[in-house]
Amino acid sequence: REYQGSPTGTDIECEGWRQEAALRMLNNNLDPEVAEKPEDLVVYGGTGRAARSWDAYDGILEELRELGDDETLLVQSGKPVGVFETHETAPRVLIANSNLVGKWDNWEHFHELESRGLIMYGQMTAGSWAYIGTQGIIQGTFETLAELARQHYPDTDGLEGKIVATGGLGGMGGAQPLAVTMNGGVCIAAEVDEERIDRRIETGYCMEKTDDLDEAIRRAEEAAAAGERYSVGVHVNAADMLEGMLEREFVPDVVTDQTSAHDELEGYYPSGYTVAEADDLRETDPAEYREEALATMERHVRAILDLQDAGSVAFEYGNNIRGQVRDHRDMDHAFDYPGFVPAYIRPLFCRGKGPFRWVALSGNPEDIHRTDQAVKELFPGKDALHRWIDLARDQVQFQGLPSRVCWLGYQSEDDEDGLTERARFALRINDLVADGEIEAPVVVTRDHLDAGSVASPNRETEAMKDGSDAVADWPILNALLNTAAGADIVSVHDGGGVGIGNAIHANNHVVLDGTDLAAEKARRVFTTDPGMGVIRHADAGYQEAIEEATASGVTIPMEDD
Amino acid sequence: REYQGSPTGTDIECEGWRQEAALRMLNNNLDPEVAEKPEDLVVYGGTGRAARSWDAYDGILEELRELGDDETLLVQSGKPVGVFETHETAPRVLIANSNLVGKWDNWEHFHELESRGLIMYGQMTAGSWAYIGTQGIIQGTFETLAELARQHYPDTDGLEGKIVATGGLGGMGGAQPLAVTMNGGVCIAAEVDEERIDRRIETGYCMEKTDDLDEAIRRAEEAAAAGERYSVGVHVNAADMLEGMLEREFVPDVVTDQTSAHDELEGYYPSGYTVAEADDLRETDPAEYREEALATMERHVRAILDLQDAGSVAFEYGNNIRGQVRDHRDMDHAFDYPGFVPAYIRPLFCRGKGPFRWVALSGNPEDIHRTDQAVKELFPGKDALHRWIDLARDQVQFQGLPSRVCWLGYQSEDDEDGLTERARFALRINDLVADGEIEAPVVVTRDHLDAGSVASPNRETEAMKDGSDAVADWPILNALLNTAAGADIVSVHDGGGVGIGNAIHANNHVVLDGTDLAAEKARRVFTTDPGMGVIRHADAGYQEAIEEATASGVTIPMEDD
Ligand SMILES: NC(=O)c1ccc[n+]([C@@H]2O[C@H](COP(=O)([O-])OP(=O)(O)OC[C@H]3O[C@@H](n4cnc5c(N)ncnc54)[C@H](O)[C@@H]3O)[C@@H](O)[C@H]2O)c1
Ligand SMILES: NC(=O)c1ccc[n+]([C@@H]2O[C@H](COP(=O)([O-])OP(=O)(O)OC[C@H]3O[C@@H](n4cnc5c(N)ncnc54)[C@H](O)[C@@H]3O)[C@@H](O)[C@H]2O)c1
Repeated sequence: REYQGSPTGTDIECEGWRQEAALRMLNNNLDPEVAEKPEDLVVYGGTGRAARSWDAYDGILEELRELGDDETLLVQSGKPVGVFETHETAPRVLIANSNLVGKWDNWEHFHELESRGLIMYGQMTAGSWAYIGTQGIIQGTFETLAELARQHYPDTDGLEGKIVATGGLGGMGGAQPLAVTMNGGVCIAAEVDEERIDRRIETGYCMEKTDDLDEAIRRAEEAAAAGERYSVGVHVNAADMLEGMLEREFVPDVVTDQTSAHDELEGYYPSGYTVAEADDLRETDPAEYREEALATMERHVRAILDLQDAGSVAFEYGNNIRGQVRDHRDMDHAFDYPGFVPAYIRPLFCRGKGPFRWVALSGNPEDIHRTDQAVKELFPGKDALHRWIDLARDQVQFQGLPSRVCWLGYQSEDDEDGLTERARFALRINDLVADGEIEAPVVVTRDHLDAGSVASPNRETEAMKDGSDAVADWPILNALLNTAAGADIVSVHDGGGVGIGNAIHANNHVVLDGTDLAAEKARRVFTTDPGMGVIRHADAGYQEAIEEATASGVTIPMEDD
Repeated sequence: REYQGSPTGTDIECEGWRQEAALRMLNNNLDPEVAEKPEDLVVYGGTGRAARSWDAYDGILEELRELGDDETLLVQSGKPVGVFETHETAPRVLIANSNLVGKWDNWEHFHELESRGLIMYGQMTAGSWAYIGTQGIIQGTFETLAELARQHYPDTDGLEGKIVATGGLGGMGGAQPLAVTMNGGVCIAAEVDEERIDRRIETGYCMEKTDDLDEAIRRAEEAAAAGERYSVGVHVNAADMLEGMLEREFVPDVVTDQTSAHDELEGYYPSGYTVAEADDLRETDPAEYREEALATMERHVRAILDLQDAGSVAFEYGNNIRGQVRDHRDMDHAFDYPGFVPAYIRPLFCRGKGPFRWVALSGNPEDIHRTDQAVKELFPGKDALHRWIDLARDQVQFQGLPSRVCWLGYQSEDDEDGLTERARFALRINDLVADGEIEAPVVVTRDHLDAGSVASPNRETEAMKDGSDAVADWPILNALLNTAAGADIVSVHDGGGVGIGNAIHANNHVVLDGTDLAAEKARRVFTTDPGMGVIRHADAGYQEAIEEATASGVTIPMEDD
């Protein structure tokens, strides 16, 4: 099917903006600028879909166009299955995607059901109509590094004067140099594939390239000394580069890696081979390729640990390189350096902070620029946030409906009315819509990866303090509570980024149409949603969450005893 | 801890009746008359608990006593974990129990978490504070047989003049003779353990006993011919009894079985042994016991199939005797007779019918007697319902707070205002509370085993027409939708009667306090809740559900195409 994307402007097809917002968000997910394969209803992440079939898609649109302000549409794995009377404050759409009873909760059974047309993979934001293109990647990396800077360099402006050494300039990893420079720092990134470096330079994600590590170090040190932003792609194997730094007794401030180490055959390049030679070896002798790749990984991890001993801040960036050498090289001490979630994301989650995003239903970029200004005015002291908003405005191209992402949390102690960060911002946007400063309503939603919305033992809830990684009561309570609080769309999915049976997560949308009803919903949902993050982490024993609860007046039952 | 049960009367400890109802239902679950081991917080079904620990129990009560009319308490596996502002129409309590991410969704991981105090088994109604003692067992059996009568003997009054042959007079099975006579029929039940027969006679569940099959058949035929109710326990092995019937060319109208055939060592008795001899053999040679038991089961199933061929209506009553001989005796044609859910319960589920229950918070039995009268007045044409209510009133002892259970569904076509059966009844009770005819509010809730609230491939969703047995989107949508519709307590559990990883199910409560708000909630929730049953079965392709939707005006998207 040919596909156009979302309607824009101020005329609506539905009975109200809440229903229209659902219709536009679903269509925006399928915008050719946003979706990977809109013709197959695939939005991103392998087979993450927005609807089960084109018939189901048509059915959803038909129901949304007729849906009353006191009705709720039910969507089961991308198919509309019911409409019931509820009430104005209740959600207009409730979605459950890919959920399976535990014993059958695996890819095999999922694919069997899928082949019979009975289920759909919703990924995280695809099946909940909340995907906004790739700006989330750069922003997530930016925020991770900003948190690292806050923890390790509290007296520095971001990463100013700091050098980050990393590897891998692929789809995700390519965001690293830009995320470092956005934070004011210097990045040296190893990449074996020269074309990848060139692509990052063309698109402005990386500044320079070189084959010469000495030159890279020299330029990096000069830039750092001058407090300037700088990034360089070094055409070299990442393991070789880190060993080279150790030989030269050069200790970068931060060391990490985003080569595709999770896959020792298709993802990671062994040392001692050019890309072409390695590609050949993979074809002719995959077993040998694996051995070579794992041998390089072992050296790679050892170099990271040695740099950590020498004073670098080291962390794993979600590519499972530690797990690989532990499992295949018996190197248990690989886990002597931490993963990025426990180290940098979880402290944010403890404060209810997570990737909050908003979309201008008008289609008018000016509406987002107005919100960019608003978020800066509201949070004058947040340097990293200002830096992100300015750079995003300059450097992030909109895909589909104009949108923005930033991390906001609970932290109601900063507000005289006791409003959370998220609620303050949403109420401000709602006022701008009411005043006509923004042309049409704005939808506020988020990633399923949020503070209190996910159980995912391989990623977001890895290594929880109390061992409650796999307890899925939390995302279910999140969805129930946000439904109770009046979110306009609420969803619960199985799988997401880590695959069927590996995670349960929930999402929600609130439509800011300038009305009092929207204000009421926003005030409540943007308290309950980050609040779930605070209580989930307080329950697991995290001190930051208990402090946040105390400071912000979040009720933790049984805490006072 | 010493334990008392629920407070009663019209004075309340909480800010409103919705919170008080939660407090009383939780305490009622733990009433020594209701709970198996109240001192351990265990309500029923192995380790089904009402709260995670006594500290958690105290914490829940403390929060409920302080909870405002616009606040919602979150309970995570029996522990209070948060309180947030929502609104009056939202639930006062949201509960998620024992839910685990799929890959970890098994007893082993559950027990590990349980031993660290991080999770609790909620069974079905224990963890959602909706258990009301054992009257559900007799009622479920009664309703199954009533549905069988409706299907096979549409022109007969219930089972009048019909003879049911069965086996097993244990904890569940002992309800069979009474359920048959309550339906106006005649029951011949084989039981190897004479003491069990005596116990059923003492408690009025069975009328007579004999060792002599000829006598049992003669008396049964006389009673059936006279249209009289009659039941007899025959002290004989069930397989031998059915073979004896075949030899005598006696064909009962109905044949089933509730011996504990699911367990070939601890549950089922082999033919050719007294109970004492078999108990000895189990000790001395368990392998031989197994062989003997399975050999008897094979004969048992063959006799059921032969009786079916001869004209009996045959069904399996949830004891897995078909599965046992298929798996251990390669007897695939065992499944030539159906299970009770597909045969008799699913047609009810298709119409949104399920076990609806209500509890008088006053503690006054008169309040339930008033509702007994009301349900009969409201549904004058439903004979089986009248029969059940009269007999329940006479024969079912209250345990804890007085309560009642009966099956009601959607079927709004019978009502001029288009109200569902459940809504009509709830609104009637609400009026009686408002008028003071009932002393204090009444809570309406149900079993998690309901039409649209459960995914359980080994029981409630076994052998769904489209193969969607394991799809858990439905119970999650049920919980979200009932939250949206305004139920006062909503819960989602993993496991229940079939164990961790084998089912996901949802429940809800509505508090009828005589107010307009209660009427609004009741009207909506008792439409959405049975409505989920209708749409779930319509989606799976059941004609009865599609007919119900058409007759009652339930919206099925994409149906009109
Ligand atoms: N943080 C997270 O939650 C998160 C999210 C997504 C992906 N990841 C992980 O990050 C990793 C990178 O993802 P991506 O999308 O960028 O992958 P990608 O495959 O697009 O890019 C990997 C890059 O690494 C290069 N490379 C491989 N081995 C190398 C070596 N030894 N030295 C130097 N360069 C080498 C490749 O040439 C390629 O350009 C993956 O393991 C992925 O699973 C983490
Ligand atoms: N319908 C359902 O959903 C459902 C619910 C619960 C239990 N069940 C099943 O029903 C069965 C009975 O449950 P229960 O709680 O009554 O069990 P129970 O163990 O309390 O009683 C079983 C009775 O059967 C008798 N018995 C065993 N083998 C016999 C034989 N060959 N002939 C005659 N009598 C024999 C035993 O003496 C005992 O009295 C179980 O298999 C159980 O799993 C079904």
